[in-house]
Amino acid sequence: MAAFDVVIRGGQVATAADLFTADIGIKDGRITALGHELAKGDEEHDARGKLITPGGIDAHCHIDQKSSFGVPGADDFFTGTRSAACGGTTTVLSFAAQHKGMSLRQVVKDYHALATPKAVIDYGFHLIISDPTEQVLGQELPALIKDGYTSFKIYMTYDLLKLNDREILEVFSLARREGAFVMVHAENHDTIAWLSQKLLDAGHKAPKFHEVSRPQPVEREATHRAITFAELIDVPILIVHVSGREAIDQIRWAQSRGLKIFAETCPQYLFLSAEDLDQPGFEGAKCMCSPPPRDKANQPYVWRGLETDVLNIISSDHAPYRYSDAENGKLRGAQDGFKKVPNGVPGLEVRMPLLFSEGVGKGRIDIHRFVAITATTPAKLYGLAPRKGSVAVGADADLVIWDTDKQVTISQDLLHDAMDYTPYQGITVTGWPAVTLSRGEAVWRDGKFLGKPGRGKFLPRALSPMVKPRGQFWSGFDPNSGRYTG
Amino acid sequence: MAAFDVVIRGGQVATAADLFTADIGIKDGRITALGHELAKGDEEHDARGKLITPGGIDAHCHIDQKSSFGVPGADDFFTGTRSAACGGTTTVLSFAAQHKGMSLRQVVKDYHALATPKAVIDYGFHLIISDPTEQVLGQELPALIKDGYTSFKIYMTYDLLKLNDREILEVFSLARREGAFVMVHAENHDTIAWLSQKLLDAGHKAPKFHEVSRPQPVEREATHRAITFAELIDVPILIVHVSGREAIDQIRWAQSRGLKIFAETCPQYLFLSAEDLDQPGFEGAKCMCSPPPRDKANQPYVWRGLETDVLNIISSDHAPYRYSDAENGKLRGAQDGFKKVPNGVPGLEVRMPLLFSEGVGKGRIDIHRFVAITATTPAKLYGLAPRKGSVAVGADADLVIWDTDKQVTISQDLLHDAMDYTPYQGITVTGWPAVTLSRGEAVWRDGKFLGKPGRGKFLPRALSPMVKPRGQFWSGFDPNSGRYTG
Amino acid sequence: MAAFDVVIRGGQVATAADLFTADIGIKDGRITALGHELAKGDEEHDARGKLITPGGIDAHCHIDQKSSFGVPGADDFFTGTRSAACGGTTTVLSFAAQHKGMSLRQVVKDYHALATPKAVIDYGFHLIISDPTEQVLGQELPALIKDGYTSFKIYMTYDLLKLNDREILEVFSLARREGAFVMVHAENHDTIAWLSQKLLDAGHKAPKFHEVSRPQPVEREATHRAITFAELIDVPILIVHVSGREAIDQIRWAQSRGLKIFAETCPQYLFLSAEDLDQPGFEGAKCMCSPPPRDKANQPYVWRGLETDVLNIISSDHAPYRYSDAENGKLRGAQDGFKKVPNGVPGLEVRMPLLFSEGVGKGRIDIHRFVAITATTPAKLYGLAPRKGSVAVGADADLVIWDTDKQVTISQDLLHDAMDYTPYQGITVTGWPAVTLSRGEAVWRDGKFLGKPGRGKFLPRALSPMVKPRGQFWSGFDPNSGRYTG
Amino acid sequence: MAAFDVVIRGGQVATAADLFTADIGIKDGRITALGHELAKGDEEHDARGKLITPGGIDAHCHIDQKSSFGVPGADDFFTGTRSAACGGTTTVLSFAAQHKGMSLRQVVKDYHALATPKAVIDYGFHLIISDPTEQVLGQELPALIKDGYTSFKIYMTYDLLKLNDREILEVFSLARREGAFVMVHAENHDTIAWLSQKLLDAGHKAPKFHEVSRPQPVEREATHRAITFAELIDVPILIVHVSGREAIDQIRWAQSRGLKIFAETCPQYLFLSAEDLDQPGFEGAKCMCSPPPRDKANQPYVWRGLETDVLNIISSDHAPYRYSDAENGKLRGAQDGFKKVPNGVPGLEVRMPLLFSEGVGKGRIDIHRFVAITATTPAKLYGLAPRKGSVAVGADADLVIWDTDKQVTISQDLLHDAMDYTPYQGITVTGWPAVTLSRGEAVWRDGKFLGKPGRGKFLPRALSPMVKPRGQFWSGFDPNSGRYTG
Repeated sequence: MAAFDVVIRGGQVATAADLFTADIGIKDGRITALGHELAKGDEEHDARGKLITPGGIDAHCHIDQKSSFGVPGADDFFTGTRSAACGGTTTVLSFAAQHKGMSLRQVVKDYHALATPKAVIDYGFHLIISDPTEQVLGQELPALIKDGYTSFKIYMTYDLLKLNDREILEVFSLARREGAFVMVHAENHDTIAWLSQKLLDAGHKAPKFHEVSRPQPVEREATHRAITFAELIDVPILIVHVSGREAIDQIRWAQSRGLKIFAETCPQYLFLSAEDLDQPGFEGAKCMCSPPPRDKANQPYVWRGLETDVLNIISSDHAPYRYSDAENGKLRGAQDGFKKVPNGVPGLEVRMPLLFSEGVGKGRIDIHRFVAITATTPAKLYGLAPRKGSVAVGADADLVIWDTDKQVTISQDLLHDAMDYTPYQGITVTGWPAVTLSRGEAVWRDGKFLGKPGRGKFLPRALSPMVKPRGQFWSGFDPNSGRYTG
Repeated sequence: MAAFDVVIRGGQVATAADLFTADIGIKDGRITALGHELAKGDEEHDARGKLITPGGIDAHCHIDQKSSFGVPGADDFFTGTRSAACGGTTTVLSFAAQHKGMSLRQVVKDYHALATPKAVIDYGFHLIISDPTEQVLGQELPALIKDGYTSFKIYMTYDLLKLNDREILEVFSLARREGAFVMVHAENHDTIAWLSQKLLDAGHKAPKFHEVSRPQPVEREATHRAITFAELIDVPILIVHVSGREAIDQIRWAQSRGLKIFAETCPQYLFLSAEDLDQPGFEGAKCMCSPPPRDKANQPYVWRGLETDVLNIISSDHAPYRYSDAENGKLRGAQDGFKKVPNGVPGLEVRMPLLFSEGVGKGRIDIHRFVAITATTPAKLYGLAPRKGSVAVGADADLVIWDTDKQVTISQDLLHDAMDYTPYQGITVTGWPAVTLSRGEAVWRDGKFLGKPGRGKFLPRALSPMVKPRGQFWSGFDPNSGRYTG
Repeated sequence: MAAFDVVIRGGQVATAADLFTADIGIKDGRITALGHELAKGDEEHDARGKLITPGGIDAHCHIDQKSSFGVPGADDFFTGTRSAACGGTTTVLSFAAQHKGMSLRQVVKDYHALATPKAVIDYGFHLIISDPTEQVLGQELPALIKDGYTSFKIYMTYDLLKLNDREILEVFSLARREGAFVMVHAENHDTIAWLSQKLLDAGHKAPKFHEVSRPQPVEREATHRAITFAELIDVPILIVHVSGREAIDQIRWAQSRGLKIFAETCPQYLFLSAEDLDQPGFEGAKCMCSPPPRDKANQPYVWRGLETDVLNIISSDHAPYRYSDAENGKLRGAQDGFKKVPNGVPGLEVRMPLLFSEGVGKGRIDIHRFVAITATTPAKLYGLAPRKGSVAVGADADLVIWDTDKQVTISQDLLHDAMDYTPYQGITVTGWPAVTLSRGEAVWRDGKFLGKPGRGKFLPRALSPMVKPRGQFWSGFDPNSGRYTG
Repeated sequence: MAAFDVVIRGGQVATAADLFTADIGIKDGRITALGHELAKGDEEHDARGKLITPGGIDAHCHIDQKSSFGVPGADDFFTGTRSAACGGTTTVLSFAAQHKGMSLRQVVKDYHALATPKAVIDYGFHLIISDPTEQVLGQELPALIKDGYTSFKIYMTYDLLKLNDREILEVFSLARREGAFVMVHAENHDTIAWLSQKLLDAGHKAPKFHEVSRPQPVEREATHRAITFAELIDVPILIVHVSGREAIDQIRWAQSRGLKIFAETCPQYLFLSAEDLDQPGFEGAKCMCSPPPRDKANQPYVWRGLETDVLNIISSDHAPYRYSDAENGKLRGAQDGFKKVPNGVPGLEVRMPLLFSEGVGKGRIDIHRFVAITATTPAKLYGLAPRKGSVAVGADADLVIWDTDKQVTISQDLLHDAMDYTPYQGITVTGWPAVTLSRGEAVWRDGKFLGKPGRGKFLPRALSPMVKPRGQFWSGFDPNSGRYTG
């Protein structure tokens, strides 16, 4: 056997299926051996008594993106990926966001220019489709899919981004034909607009009215609608950032009928609640995201969804808007009310520790489920497996060595993003990454960030194995019966 | 006791609650007494051994209306109400249909001009709102509601009629404020348009593709969406012409959660099926309506919905387009395909006999439920009770004396509308009206139509007792909790 | 028209379907006319401005019955029916309860001997079958059914009464064959016994542990099981005294699948809660019944069940055990704990006023639904229609003239049973019977009881129209498919 | 690194989470390394281009057991485990079955005596509890659990085996206290007995009436009941051999409410149907098992249950009764009818190939799900992980090298059990084990069985990690609220 660049000794390794004690041998950034008493490596980590998991994949985060509000987020690819790495995440999937009139190809180029010199860990891009012209659907998208941009996100709300029902059908149809994977932001646009207007007209400007303006039925309705379109086109989709029990019930119903509906949730729906929007002054804005956190009684439903695989992955939906910034931050809405506040909360760095502590530590999910929802399943869904998402021979050596007993009280001054607050301030967790390795290289160790900007590599992605190419809408469709037969 | 103009002797009277044997005394068109051995009337009907029910209320029919296809229906108010009367229906609620740019007030005037000289039985108008301008919502509608036009219908599909989600919210909000009642045609517009285009592009023009272009999920989705809006505004609504089990499941779910969602179905969903659209030549067009009839296995679900009060009323949705008419009839689509065919089937005359024979006669529903869904509940829902819809002291003497043993094989040459076909041709029913009385006057007896054009009277309607006025959207709404408290 | 013995002038009459203003003419105890300006009666009631409903039918009450605890209840047929009459109830269906080894025919004779000299209003008997021997099933029951005892109740719990699964199947099979109607007390016996033993072993004796020993899943399980047996035999049944949302969900599920499952609830599940069992001293025993009242959040589910016809009737389940009686009353358990307390609460007199005030008065149900669930539907289900249960020509003149504005604070000293407490003490209701007429005779007027013991008549009952005789288990059963075809 | 006894070169390894190409190094029967270019082993297998999965765990099979019918099965531990090994199964969990009056400890001894000299692969025992005396529950069971018999099965039907509800509660309570895991055979006993009697009385003796005598509601009811008991005791359980959609719906409902209900299905519910019971002569008996296979339309529901993790594992429920044996085989019932036929079908050898071909090969489940339900999840549920059930460092080298393209038409003469028929005769599958290794030793290769009787070892099992010991029924139970708080 070839010698190793790095060997991690004697850790207890958790995958989505297994738990075993082994040395991990790493060569050229990949795991080349798992075994007992492996030969010596040029570099060694002593992991005896430590838990090792795959590095996290954060499949939903907004880095250096001009948001749907026209305001830029606080993090660039350096601060964003640095923060991720320090929290045990080794891959991020960020967005290349089209706005009306833009060429998708150009959009992709622009985001590469932002990421290449700065990324610390590996990254890929989902495309955001907001202008599905014939040019985009007929030429740009098929070519980009072939180039490794195999997933895209669409919005059912936000003035600048939303697609109408017919556009959604077109995008789903293209996804089916090309084997690409569509992520859906599911909230009913008109209802939010209408309720917001009524609330503001009545003088209700505080952050807490953000939740009142987009209650659970708003999310449930759009979720049901997206499911219906996916059912009609017979194409798998994923509902992003599912917040509450009403949407969860729709998704479970769809899955139980045999539809391939996948779903994601985020830490904000497990750890925050609508009460957090109702704070003195404008502080509630710190917890504003869309969909909003729901009542506290809702949180166990989201945990249960993760446990029973109704919710398949957890992402941060990191959308970093500083609080004390009247132009591009949360205070932007202090004057004119909640509609002006950019939506989103940061979460790249705390996603893994929060879930580890409150999920695995408190017995809500087991360690295998933790690995599955933070790494293995996102890797499979988004065409990164087998390179990413597990601890297996041949995979990139993206690993977290955990200090499972370490108690940390979350505080913004401990974090490595460009924010001025974290909505999780004050929560004490047990367990934190001791070492994060990206392709075998420690980028975080003993409380120190060790990564270099630009070392992260772009990840062109395969078609999702969950979503097989199936040609035209008509392939397998029997117009006489109106049913798919293939 | 005053003498009677008319007395009906010894019939067995069925109401939605009771079954009893009594003479019915009628004075000035109203029932003034029910009892044994009533005094003699100027006119007498011997009903011994006969069943008497309230005259039917057909709460959904299109008479002398220019359709959403821009083509006129075959029936005017004479032929339409004549046909109704001969089939045991004594009240029709037809539509005063606004198209874009029209004044609602003018629309109403126009329809009165059509109805006044011709109607044979009493009638009212629902308003169709297709252009909810500020003028319409702010002034015309509130005034018209006060004048007795207390219900209106909106469409979620059809290019010329459909409202978008925000307009629906506005209309629901107005209904809540004014105590009016909204009927919803629930199908997803974009999906139908998209599927139709794909089908036609692929050369699928036959009538059977009409059903393929609007499968059950299309109806289910819009039903769910309408329910969501009603839930958010907290206003009762009625889903018209529910066709299939998927929509029924949504409605039952809503009702079980305490929402006031009412629903209507039609004979075409009990007696026709998608197979009927697939016939030699273009004959299938005779059974085209929207939503379309579903598979045969669906029919028992609709019956069960009627039995268990998930579906509350049955109407004909009479929409009379002759078959052999290439300009305004079904053959209009023979050349260019199913999208050109005007949607709708006739049913005013056969609704009551079909339901009596196959419902009561076959034991699927009992006689009380028959009365409830054909007369009493429509009367209550649409503000016609206690004047219409039952056999009770004080009510109009709108009655049907049934020949419960008469066997009739339905055939267009027996019917009294202006059509050239009936989709129910060849069905043999047991039971047919022997006499239909409208305000005490026989308009159908012994197989002869006896009514006079113009004798029918307009019925201004009260607010529905199911729908109490509740002021602004904000009344009872606690913006802090986001919940209605009143 | 013949003259009238009694005429009630100008009241507003409510039936399960209609609301109309009419005089009511009564001759020989029956309604012979409804009309305007009826001829004069020998006796006249001025009901102008008053509401008139059918007299209540309390289809589930225990009068002069030795209970399953071996202890007699407090009321005999005089005090029991007097109490009913004063509260607007004009018919009671009580039980003739078999215990092991008894001849059913003898049981019936014994209960007649108790009722005949004392009953103030009309009455019938359900049979309780606790010993379904061949003699009972093969001979006694078929003969008793023909004699007008067309319904019987079985128990899934109580040591002295419970049938095992096989016996239940036999009884259901007989009911199917004879067209009789079975009522089921659905709680899982072994679970209650096991939980009670564990609780008592741990020293938990207080009344509140009664609810802990029979939580909702205990009722849900037995309800599901009874539904399964009814499904297999294809026979309609009624679940008595449904207490909570979990059982309600099972019943709605069954109904939505087309099964003829009927259900009853009682005032204790609308007005009491488990909190009422947790009172100082042993006072909580006053609210002990089986199934027990649930948490307060459960009450709206029961109201909704009544509103949507998932729950079809409301009865009192009057089971009168005095509080301060250490031998036959609630204090019997003060020493040895909750298992010794006889289960049951009184309710004959307050059922109608409670439901009228909190149901109709508060808008939870409308007046028609009130009439349906208190009178019309029980009459139909138990073979009393058309003689009882409505205000219609030919029906017995069993009527309530309501003083709809009268405020009454319920207190035991206002009531007319033999109890020493009411669990509803202190509840203020709006609306109370001003006059109760039984077959045209006022038995309660202006706060005075006017009835005579022995005037009440036994009501032999027809087979329920809901339950048609269908012969052997095999009739309509296709053993090849395992499905019923007829 | 130490040298290897065996190295498997270059195979593509599938686990429940991952798919990777690696050499597998084996030492002393365990996997000690996974990697590229491992050092040479004493023995080498060339697996390039081949798929490798964990050896199957058949967690439900009856070997050398006297059945509930008092008749012995055809297989002893040699033929049974040989058959398993030849089909890719490397671990069996068989039953040590108590009958009334027996000491459990003695039962276990007896089964060891049968297994020790004959078993070819490793094995463990579930205990069957049919006589839960104080001696059994208080002493024998707790001791046996400590000795590695950590799971037991109970029956809700079969005269000789069934527990009543109270006994089930006691067993569940003990399981909770000791941390043991209960498997439940869920069918309603009395209903089966009653229906069977009626069928036989009517002369219906053929095998097809077996299904008529235990239709889906019979299984659904008992499943609901078992779930209720598990909910009340708050203890995880597993429902064995789930056959149909009605039981599946109950299980999904329980899981969605947060209950730890696990479930198993078997090949007979995916590949056989009730039609197979209806064959000329008595041939249908070959497919008789309990619960019986259902209609063909049911099969996709079972597949979907496996796919969505509502059904967690698949076992054979191998119960080998020869056909042509009038004493101990299927023909035992030829004279007196279906009740005399011993229930059960063989399946040890074909379980893995059937599921691989029709599941993975046809795209109904992916390779990871195949591994999970055939090996990894049973290992975790029954306390065999991490030693069994995966391909991981430290695990036993129980492996299958697949010939994924090999087409085999199943025929009894290819199989290695002691049967004279297989119900799957004539089914052609694609994919069959090329080599089966048990602790590194090939027991099946190139179509030859290579194992030795007695080489299989007994597996004492840990408590299931799914089922943590929680002490008495009272631990965590708050009698005041009636809820578990811990």
